[in-house]
Amino acid sequence: MGALRLAALCLAALTTLSQGVTYQPNWASIDSRPLPAWYDQSKLGIFVHWGVFSVPSISSEWFWERWQGEKPDPKVVQFMKDNYRPDFTYGDFGKEFTAEFFDADQWAKIFEASGAKYIVFVSKHHEGYTNWPSKYSFNWNSMDVGPNRDIVGELATAVRKTDLIFGLYHSLFEWFHPLYLQDKANNFTTQDFVARKTMPELFEIVNKYKPEVIWSDGDWEAPDVYWNSTNFIAWLYNESPVKDTVVTNDRWGIGVTCHHGGYLTCMDRYNPGVKQNRKFENAMTIDKASWGFRRNAYLEDYLTMDELIKTLIVTVSCGGNLLVNVGPTKYGMIAPIYEERLRDLGQWMQVNGDGIYGSHPWTYQNDTKNPDVWYTMKADGSSKDVYAFVLKWPTTDVLTLAAPAPTSTTKVTLMGYQAPLNFTKTGSQGVSVQLSEVQYALLPCEWAWTFKLTNIAN
Amino acid sequence: MGALRLAALCLAALTTLSQGVTYQPNWASIDSRPLPAWYDQSKLGIFVHWGVFSVPSISSEWFWERWQGEKPDPKVVQFMKDNYRPDFTYGDFGKEFTAEFFDADQWAKIFEASGAKYIVFVSKHHEGYTNWPSKYSFNWNSMDVGPNRDIVGELATAVRKTDLIFGLYHSLFEWFHPLYLQDKANNFTTQDFVARKTMPELFEIVNKYKPEVIWSDGDWEAPDVYWNSTNFIAWLYNESPVKDTVVTNDRWGIGVTCHHGGYLTCMDRYNPGVKQNRKFENAMTIDKASWGFRRNAYLEDYLTMDELIKTLIVTVSCGGNLLVNVGPTKYGMIAPIYEERLRDLGQWMQVNGDGIYGSHPWTYQNDTKNPDVWYTMKADGSSKDVYAFVLKWPTTDVLTLAAPAPTSTTKVTLMGYQAPLNFTKTGSQGVSVQLSEVQYALLPCEWAWTFKLTNIAN
Amino acid sequence: MGALRLAALCLAALTTLSQGVTYQPNWASIDSRPLPAWYDQSKLGIFVHWGVFSVPSISSEWFWERWQGEKPDPKVVQFMKDNYRPDFTYGDFGKEFTAEFFDADQWAKIFEASGAKYIVFVSKHHEGYTNWPSKYSFNWNSMDVGPNRDIVGELATAVRKTDLIFGLYHSLFEWFHPLYLQDKANNFTTQDFVARKTMPELFEIVNKYKPEVIWSDGDWEAPDVYWNSTNFIAWLYNESPVKDTVVTNDRWGIGVTCHHGGYLTCMDRYNPGVKQNRKFENAMTIDKASWGFRRNAYLEDYLTMDELIKTLIVTVSCGGNLLVNVGPTKYGMIAPIYEERLRDLGQWMQVNGDGIYGSHPWTYQNDTKNPDVWYTMKADGSSKDVYAFVLKWPTTDVLTLAAPAPTSTTKVTLMGYQAPLNFTKTGSQGVSVQLSEVQYALLPCEWAWTFKLTNIAN
Amino acid sequence: MGALRLAALCLAALTTLSQGVTYQPNWASIDSRPLPAWYDQSKLGIFVHWGVFSVPSISSEWFWERWQGEKPDPKVVQFMKDNYRPDFTYGDFGKEFTAEFFDADQWAKIFEASGAKYIVFVSKHHEGYTNWPSKYSFNWNSMDVGPNRDIVGELATAVRKTDLIFGLYHSLFEWFHPLYLQDKANNFTTQDFVARKTMPELFEIVNKYKPEVIWSDGDWEAPDVYWNSTNFIAWLYNESPVKDTVVTNDRWGIGVTCHHGGYLTCMDRYNPGVKQNRKFENAMTIDKASWGFRRNAYLEDYLTMDELIKTLIVTVSCGGNLLVNVGPTKYGMIAPIYEERLRDLGQWMQVNGDGIYGSHPWTYQNDTKNPDVWYTMKADGSSKDVYAFVLKWPTTDVLTLAAPAPTSTTKVTLMGYQAPLNFTKTGSQGVSVQLSEVQYALLPCEWAWTFKLTNIAN
Repeated sequence: MGALRLAALCLAALTTLSQGVTYQPNWASIDSRPLPAWYDQSKLGIFVHWGVFSVPSISSEWFWERWQGEKPDPKVVQFMKDNYRPDFTYGDFGKEFTAEFFDADQWAKIFEASGAKYIVFVSKHHEGYTNWPSKYSFNWNSMDVGPNRDIVGELATAVRKTDLIFGLYHSLFEWFHPLYLQDKANNFTTQDFVARKTMPELFEIVNKYKPEVIWSDGDWEAPDVYWNSTNFIAWLYNESPVKDTVVTNDRWGIGVTCHHGGYLTCMDRYNPGVKQNRKFENAMTIDKASWGFRRNAYLEDYLTMDELIKTLIVTVSCGGNLLVNVGPTKYGMIAPIYEERLRDLGQWMQVNGDGIYGSHPWTYQNDTKNPDVWYTMKADGSSKDVYAFVLKWPTTDVLTLAAPAPTSTTKVTLMGYQAPLNFTKTGSQGVSVQLSEVQYALLPCEWAWTFKLTNIAN
Repeated sequence: MGALRLAALCLAALTTLSQGVTYQPNWASIDSRPLPAWYDQSKLGIFVHWGVFSVPSISSEWFWERWQGEKPDPKVVQFMKDNYRPDFTYGDFGKEFTAEFFDADQWAKIFEASGAKYIVFVSKHHEGYTNWPSKYSFNWNSMDVGPNRDIVGELATAVRKTDLIFGLYHSLFEWFHPLYLQDKANNFTTQDFVARKTMPELFEIVNKYKPEVIWSDGDWEAPDVYWNSTNFIAWLYNESPVKDTVVTNDRWGIGVTCHHGGYLTCMDRYNPGVKQNRKFENAMTIDKASWGFRRNAYLEDYLTMDELIKTLIVTVSCGGNLLVNVGPTKYGMIAPIYEERLRDLGQWMQVNGDGIYGSHPWTYQNDTKNPDVWYTMKADGSSKDVYAFVLKWPTTDVLTLAAPAPTSTTKVTLMGYQAPLNFTKTGSQGVSVQLSEVQYALLPCEWAWTFKLTNIAN
Repeated sequence: MGALRLAALCLAALTTLSQGVTYQPNWASIDSRPLPAWYDQSKLGIFVHWGVFSVPSISSEWFWERWQGEKPDPKVVQFMKDNYRPDFTYGDFGKEFTAEFFDADQWAKIFEASGAKYIVFVSKHHEGYTNWPSKYSFNWNSMDVGPNRDIVGELATAVRKTDLIFGLYHSLFEWFHPLYLQDKANNFTTQDFVARKTMPELFEIVNKYKPEVIWSDGDWEAPDVYWNSTNFIAWLYNESPVKDTVVTNDRWGIGVTCHHGGYLTCMDRYNPGVKQNRKFENAMTIDKASWGFRRNAYLEDYLTMDELIKTLIVTVSCGGNLLVNVGPTKYGMIAPIYEERLRDLGQWMQVNGDGIYGSHPWTYQNDTKNPDVWYTMKADGSSKDVYAFVLKWPTTDVLTLAAPAPTSTTKVTLMGYQAPLNFTKTGSQGVSVQLSEVQYALLPCEWAWTFKLTNIAN
Repeated sequence: MGALRLAALCLAALTTLSQGVTYQPNWASIDSRPLPAWYDQSKLGIFVHWGVFSVPSISSEWFWERWQGEKPDPKVVQFMKDNYRPDFTYGDFGKEFTAEFFDADQWAKIFEASGAKYIVFVSKHHEGYTNWPSKYSFNWNSMDVGPNRDIVGELATAVRKTDLIFGLYHSLFEWFHPLYLQDKANNFTTQDFVARKTMPELFEIVNKYKPEVIWSDGDWEAPDVYWNSTNFIAWLYNESPVKDTVVTNDRWGIGVTCHHGGYLTCMDRYNPGVKQNRKFENAMTIDKASWGFRRNAYLEDYLTMDELIKTLIVTVSCGGNLLVNVGPTKYGMIAPIYEERLRDLGQWMQVNGDGIYGSHPWTYQNDTKNPDVWYTMKADGSSKDVYAFVLKWPTTDVLTLAAPAPTSTTKVTLMGYQAPLNFTKTGSQGVSVQLSEVQYALLPCEWAWTFKLTNIAN
């Protein structure tokens, strides 16, 4: 056992109990912690990928790896040949990360307008460049090279002026860090990289910026023991300045993902389509091919609102949160196509948010007969309301739902529309809602419509 | 009279008749030329502003003038202070005009998908940088500095693979050209700039690229005699390789605009709202504040589809063409927000284009009672059809039109929708169209709907 | 005959006589003009090559031609491949011509310290970039791209604060100017380039900066008739603001060089070694391989002081002026190795200048027996003094000169050394000068020593 | 006591004896080690300062500190305002450190031609940028940003092809490293910076490049205990791959300099002028104001050969080595002015080296009466030869030396000159050497002349 791990174990063991509970640096203990309630209630977050990869801004935020990694992408290699001098290095991109239009308050307003309740900002991606002036990344951070600004700090301040909760993404590994590569060559029997880089950085961002999400990533090549994961999380839960409110995810080492930690992310764009027992998050991105901004993307590369709304509905219906990613430009703007998707999403949430925020999976997720209908549920004391999200407006003027069992007091309303709708019961379960009286010109939204059924029996 | 003008006059006088007509270098003769038919039939064109101004890419394509011109814009001045060394020159931007993703075929596809029938590309704006390798702009053109490509040539070739017609914008004056400034200081009694720069350039682009639109601009400080306008146009109409098909506009000198030339543009965003006797073009831009791409624009700066479709309808209804502008990025992409507007426009045109292309203004433009309805007309021999463009779907299930006088054979259809609609006549003029049977889920488009009334009496 | 030439001929013919003489635009007349006296008396000038070629700063000021001209130099081509993106253009170098340390007063001081009496500055080289804000080179001049300064103007002002005379080099042709290439393709039967570029520029620099040398170059591909040479020179001699003092050279068209014009330059590094009947200039450069600064030059590429002093002596002895070239760095410094050569030259001139400035070729140039000795002469009324320049100090303590015939009043002194030296006559011609008494520690200079023989008979 | 120091102590204590001696991590033990003989015999070394400071290349290698340190130099601050955008960072310079002409073999040849026997190359200066791909300076090293090359490695290989010995300079502290600043704020009671940066780096360069000089610097703000100095040196002497041949200097902590370590450097340009008991090195630079290359230096800023030769002679006479510094350009060239000084020095050493290499201080350093004469001595068994270095050639044809006591077999020769010279004894001590017979044209060198007196009595 390394000295580092030993020290951390002792530290954890000696910690005085927090609120009567001290978590131990093992998964059983960590998994036993209840997820702070704000997270499940929020349902919708915004993910932001920004870094030096936003300078070449093609292919994806994996640009460096695809250029100089183990399996280079010929397109990326050719792009560099076509546009840069032969000795150009990835580090040379740093200077061009200018961020001249970065206005954290403006970002925060756009995120808030989307209906999201929290953000997760990439503090450091696999390239190793830190978007804050880290003590452990001298001259490879946003104060020393490029923007000359504490990006994480500015964004944290701006976000906290709104109702959004501030979280940070952090990559455990770095593709090309020589200490990591050395540890890897040693089959992770050494921990130089973790001791000198990963751990100090994580402590630094938590203590300095107090993020309420730690979205870990880049864990998959090494076991959690290498990453010192359980020790760090125990500290995060027991000692850190955000110990009572912070949530983390599950990307903390080989075999851990989708099994342990805070909420589960399992894989990118995780959208299982069936109800999950444990809280999960579907982290996905509006640009279907990249998390970082791609200068050469076409419209077809972006999700349509139909696709985005459907993803939100299915995810929440099955118990997940949706984390929608945007990639700002190197000069600090959220491109209008992203802004449009976020604002459209926000308009939809203004009408339909009551069925999303604070909702729970119902007995049924997808309707048993109508594949274009998904459900959520809210139970307030004695009554139970069900929200049916309809992805396609019926062509027949009648909406047929097979799953709900109405009671005598059940009412059906179209959210955002004035009056209750007539419906008929179609057996022990099932209702037919009459739509012919709905005026097209008065429809409250596009893309999907929410029918609320109050006081449902099942 | 200058030697240049004398020579041109002689040249024109000696020209053999083209199709039996030779135009004289005076406005009466030039104005007498019928506009080639393709232009009025096309209705919709795409305007493209690209140049070195796309490098700073803030404020607008007038960046240079707003930085170093007579009335500097403090924001532009500050931007330069904040982001560049003090001795940075506008010419220094040239190198950064990289155009690495410029794919003329891709542009042409997007333009074609918009439903447009012609494009007008900025060959040279007021900055003087030529987007082709001009003999008269050594080291201030797209082959010598920046892209290292003949942009006009590549685009002309690509556009001609499609059904689009290729046109070019050209600025007569240049803000900072010393010969222009000298002529101006001489109260335009000298013509050095015109003789050495403007005229050679115009001949060069017409002979080399054979554009079927010459969209002149930058004329307003000097009279047409200075610009040698009528001589050039006479050559264009009598002698040039595009003499039979070319159209030009009206920006050819003080007092000429809105009065003489080819079609009228009058002023930017010219949308008179009433029927015009002479063919006009409404040149407008999707970014409300700029023709060139602005990196720091927000979503709210772009026209919505509602606004764009309404502008198209009103313009065409009054007899105009609509020239919709997009500004590509310095790296050669049409940003997705622009692509989305153009593709949305194209989808709308696929459904409703029959009422736009080849249409004519009707007796009525705006409905006499319903302000949200505008008309076009097509008369084929004995019958006359009217197209009513409805900007807002009625909230009453009934569409009331006050202007049309139906005949006994009149039918009313919603374009893109299957079956004819029931309607009733409401006096000598006027119809009430029944909408309650229209299925929302089957509506063919958004933003505006076209009702075709065949065989109308008035 | 072109209209341009006709106009110029008329202009010249109508000119009122200047000082009683009007020169005609033909070589016989031009050659008849006496060279203004200042030029022959000056003997030593400084040539300065500076321009965009100082940015790549390898190979030579011919970099562009060697990169993209008819016979590319593989080393230059490789340098570009190794260090720049593939689409990099020569024009893109312009921005990097920063000139941040250019201090014209400092340059003038260094030039003055060299003992030179005039300078010839490259106003425009074959690349076409003008080191002044020309009206005829928009955005390819030192105000519009790069330094953002009027370099010619600053240097003219600074030089005129000293005793130096200010001259300008100007290239008639430009390798890649499209109008020149067009005229060339037309076998120089068209003169567009001359009419639009060369002539306007030459008039501009003469009228604006009043240079007293016009050092023409770049003439060799076309005849003088193409270049309008005699018309221009006639104007220069009859009408220009420097008509009484200006000198020009001989590079004015095929067949003209080494035969007509002002003084002769014949070829680069022209050092015939025998007395010339017509005034000539040996234009040479301290960097043996380049006139522009080469960043990658080694010490061995620079002339030693021995070589430089010998070149000066031989050139002046044969009746020529020496024009010593330096190439400043792109950031505006005269590199210390150049400054050292110039200051060393100046120290030598302070001791020996009396035998150089205002001197004349003697009957003998090289001594008839001692190959390391060269002569000049000054005749003041009745007496004639001869200066013997000794390139190697004798190893025998005796200096033997075969050519001079001393008189009874002849004295021999070592310039810069206190007392006259003993000598003996060795026949009708010839002297032996005793050197054993000369103290090494008191020698006035290095590299060469001047022995003045007064009142010589031959 | 920190864990780091404890571990090092133990490590040292357990080390098996090397050649019968194990050095302890205390100054008494370290100081007891005999200096490897090669060092004293070499007398002349070349110091090379190269790094990111070579990009701005003004003021000095302290550019960063003078720009953004505690006491900014207004000239440096103004330079940045005049030439860079406001948010430009020092890190942004890294990309411009291009080194395109760096040819290590060519450097080695120039160094060898200077007569030097070893070089000391700046592996890392106070800016923290490592000229090798350090594991501890990710993206702030010469492989990751700028040259894309292992500069130290290339130079080590090239130098070892010659007879030169390879050494490395290394700065203990870094002006702006946040971990250093943190330790400093903690009054050096923490050692994070030393543990994570300084020590790993030092081990890395010794193990990887096997330098035979470790030229430590940047120690002066903290005590040796902070720097872990004695532990490191004990390892260097006992364990390292260069333990038998390596030398180090004295800059290892407050109070250590000029007292402990290997040889003494005391202060920059240390030239005491009197004989020293302990071996010292006079580290000085040809540019009087800077160790790094200054683009804006004038000739007067460089030492003349007279000054340089005098410094060498005085230093060696008093027992020191001379370490002559040059600063290459950012593009990798040793500027010709430096090359000239080095080659001139080498020419002098070829003639006079016998009195320098392997020599020892004599009883007298400066002659007792002639201030322009300095001495060295060589004693081979029974005989003792003295070398008198004469800085100014006598004006009297007689060289008077007051210190030497000749024997009957003493001969006096001028090194490089053929025959022995006549001399007379002037008392018990003192000789007068006759110079009148020396031919000026045959003098073997400039700047200073060496008179060898064999078989001297005192």
